[in-house]
Amino acid sequence: MMQTDDTICALSTPQGMGAIAVIRVSGPATFPVLERFFRPAGQRHALATAKPYTLIYGTLYEQEERVDEVMIGVYRAPKSYTGQDVAEISCHGSVYIQERIVRMLLSAGVRMAEPGEYTLRAFFNGKMDLSQAEGVADLIASESEAAHRVAYQQMRGGISEEIRGLREELIQFASLVELELDFTEEDVEFADKAQLTELVAKIQRVVQRLLESYGTGNVIKNGVPVAIVGAPNAGKSTLLNALVQEERAIVTEVAGTTRDAIEDEVNLGGVKFRFIDTAGIRETEDVVEKIGIRKTYEKIAQSRVVLYLFDAGRLQENAPLVREEIAALRAKVAGQKLLLLANKIDQAQREEVDRVLANPEELLYLSALEGEGLEALIEALQASVNLSALESNQNIVTSARHYEALRQSQEDLARVAEGLAEGRSGDLLALDIREALRHLGAIIGEVDVDRDILGAIFGKFCIGK
Amino acid sequence: MMQTDDTICALSTPQGMGAIAVIRVSGPATFPVLERFFRPAGQRHALATAKPYTLIYGTLYEQEERVDEVMIGVYRAPKSYTGQDVAEISCHGSVYIQERIVRMLLSAGVRMAEPGEYTLRAFFNGKMDLSQAEGVADLIASESEAAHRVAYQQMRGGISEEIRGLREELIQFASLVELELDFTEEDVEFADKAQLTELVAKIQRVVQRLLESYGTGNVIKNGVPVAIVGAPNAGKSTLLNALVQEERAIVTEVAGTTRDAIEDEVNLGGVKFRFIDTAGIRETEDVVEKIGIRKTYEKIAQSRVVLYLFDAGRLQENAPLVREEIAALRAKVAGQKLLLLANKIDQAQREEVDRVLANPEELLYLSALEGEGLEALIEALQASVNLSALESNQNIVTSARHYEALRQSQEDLARVAEGLAEGRSGDLLALDIREALRHLGAIIGEVDVDRDILGAIFGKFCIGK
Repeated sequence: MMQTDDTICALSTPQGMGAIAVIRVSGPATFPVLERFFRPAGQRHALATAKPYTLIYGTLYEQEERVDEVMIGVYRAPKSYTGQDVAEISCHGSVYIQERIVRMLLSAGVRMAEPGEYTLRAFFNGKMDLSQAEGVADLIASESEAAHRVAYQQMRGGISEEIRGLREELIQFASLVELELDFTEEDVEFADKAQLTELVAKIQRVVQRLLESYGTGNVIKNGVPVAIVGAPNAGKSTLLNALVQEERAIVTEVAGTTRDAIEDEVNLGGVKFRFIDTAGIRETEDVVEKIGIRKTYEKIAQSRVVLYLFDAGRLQENAPLVREEIAALRAKVAGQKLLLLANKIDQAQREEVDRVLANPEELLYLSALEGEGLEALIEALQASVNLSALESNQNIVTSARHYEALRQSQEDLARVAEGLAEGRSGDLLALDIREALRHLGAIIGEVDVDRDILGAIFGKFCIGK
Repeated sequence: MMQTDDTICALSTPQGMGAIAVIRVSGPATFPVLERFFRPAGQRHALATAKPYTLIYGTLYEQEERVDEVMIGVYRAPKSYTGQDVAEISCHGSVYIQERIVRMLLSAGVRMAEPGEYTLRAFFNGKMDLSQAEGVADLIASESEAAHRVAYQQMRGGISEEIRGLREELIQFASLVELELDFTEEDVEFADKAQLTELVAKIQRVVQRLLESYGTGNVIKNGVPVAIVGAPNAGKSTLLNALVQEERAIVTEVAGTTRDAIEDEVNLGGVKFRFIDTAGIRETEDVVEKIGIRKTYEKIAQSRVVLYLFDAGRLQENAPLVREEIAALRAKVAGQKLLLLANKIDQAQREEVDRVLANPEELLYLSALEGEGLEALIEALQASVNLSALESNQNIVTSARHYEALRQSQEDLARVAEGLAEGRSGDLLALDIREALRHLGAIIGEVDVDRDILGAIFGKFCIGK
């Protein structure tokens, strides 16, 4: 995969039958290989002499048998996605034809591309940095408006630019420190200590903001985890169905595209929510049930919002239990937002619910079956995600790899600040600065990145990208 | 759908997430609409003035928000698939982006394309005839080498050409007959009766060959139905698994493309076989089982090959039953090929099997578990399909609609021949000739084809084609 002077091919469109499919070829042998199989429809449009950014129509042959009539998009190095010669073959979308064309290319010495290998080549050829390449994968995987927006900004180089800025400031800082170091024997102090301290603090603040954005970025990318706690008859599945329907109503029905049928993932207002059903927290002596309760608490700990659902119509008889469970949940939730959902409110009096539960502020009235109160619930769910960074177009960290690199650089920076305060020597400070530079550089791939890490990054891509 | 002056769009690549997706737009408003959303990356490459067959890179915006960086393939009327202005938008393959771009187009007054609507427009604009359009759909659906080859020939106009040739000969014939009719009072007989008779017979022979090719064409397109009869312990599922593995071994493993996991459809030597498991034909008094046996016989009647599988290792104890079942099957099969498979032959003596069953000629020795005898079985299966027409590049009818039209024209021609023999008058003959012309013309769409029929033909297409 790390080799880039051979020629690779892959199906770039989704698997299966469709009207058309696109097979992408990249590498120095792209056009010589295709010329063996392809005969253009017109004399004037030979592949070898075709201009870049043109579409050439013709027939693919294997021996003398016609395999398909195709349109080939021509890109020439270095002006292509990978920076190499690239051809995009649009063929009829039968699985048989897709396979046959790929097999023809393989028989001519073209290699099957690994997942993400086109983008890896783009990275190697300086078409984009590492963070931008990761943005491409995230963009393709994006399932919600928010995830799309964050990934797009990353692909366009938003984070890269900010990291580059930080590195430049650090390099400037290092040069000031090293200047001081060089001339120390002559007692010349070029760098003012207070100025240096302020510079480090400024960089630390930016890194801190990026680190904090990961809380939002992570849930935007992977979905906001919402734990649902409640007895089976409280209406959990009715609620989920109602939310899924709400999503369907929001999303214009676009024929020809499908939505994943994962019923517990719902896009609401441009953000994906992952609903996690729990076993409830009912007090019990039963060992098996005790395990279930422990798991419920684990799921609550991993979630961002906890929905406690109860049957308002039967609150009279269940009041002690419901009160007990609410108290237990209130004791457990830490950073999570707790919402108490009085379901089946069409079968109860709101005042009565308020009275029995002593006017809890987290209470929402709901009838999942009638669709009543859904909007207020959705608003409350959306409020659990801080989208202000998204709206102000600030960079948001969504990658665990970036988070880890930022965290490490923050530790380096803390040592630099400490060293400055303690009056540590310039060469000791320089060591920590270099470490911070290295950690930040890993995000955009400006320092040597381990092959294993590259493999892990690009291995997560679709094949064909 | 029959309207062609509006602008349509659809996802043309398979549904789901992929590296890239292609959204196709066709109609007069294609470029005016796209210009509202698209900003090219370079100044020189405005969409409005872009040359046909070029690729323009740029960004799609909705209001001021960037939606995606896309490559647009530009085709201008009449030199496009549909004959209209066409744009093919290659976007990042996230489902979110695909949906969003389609929604943007719909919001600008573009209509969602019906299945096959691009090809319907191509037909309306004289880009291809009806039989060729059907060939496009078959090509996309083709799952085997044989199906691919037949569909390709049809798409290229193989059948159309033959039908056109027949129609020309019929028209020539009609002109001769009508000439005779016009001058009949003057007792001039321009058309020699024997010559006319021979001409009709020649046309009839071609139509007959096409009609007969449907037997092969139908199984090439839909798969050869193979009924498997045998006791549950005879090893039916082991056999199917072995055949599926054989297919996998034949087909080069091409990463990035998947094969349907329908275990009872197997491609062997370029032809698809559909294996139909039956309930067996064991004699019984049980009412439910009797229904099962009746169904087995129904499945046998619909199949082309019947495999009777028995456990050779336990033939000693089961001999009377096996002999009885073989006799029952021999009595039932009519056009079908019957193969007796002595499975688990590794646990038996071949001579013993021969002796017990009195050397039946349909016998094959098999060990599905060990993979023994599979090749001979596959050869026997392949021999059940007459591929000589395929190999000699003769046209093969695969469409029930064509078959029906040919059958009707054959009836018309029979009446013409009969009329000639009986010395019927020219105007009566001309009526039947016109009917035959009409029926043949329906195949290629040269006569007015009913909207319902067009709807049925194009409704079977993928969306986006």
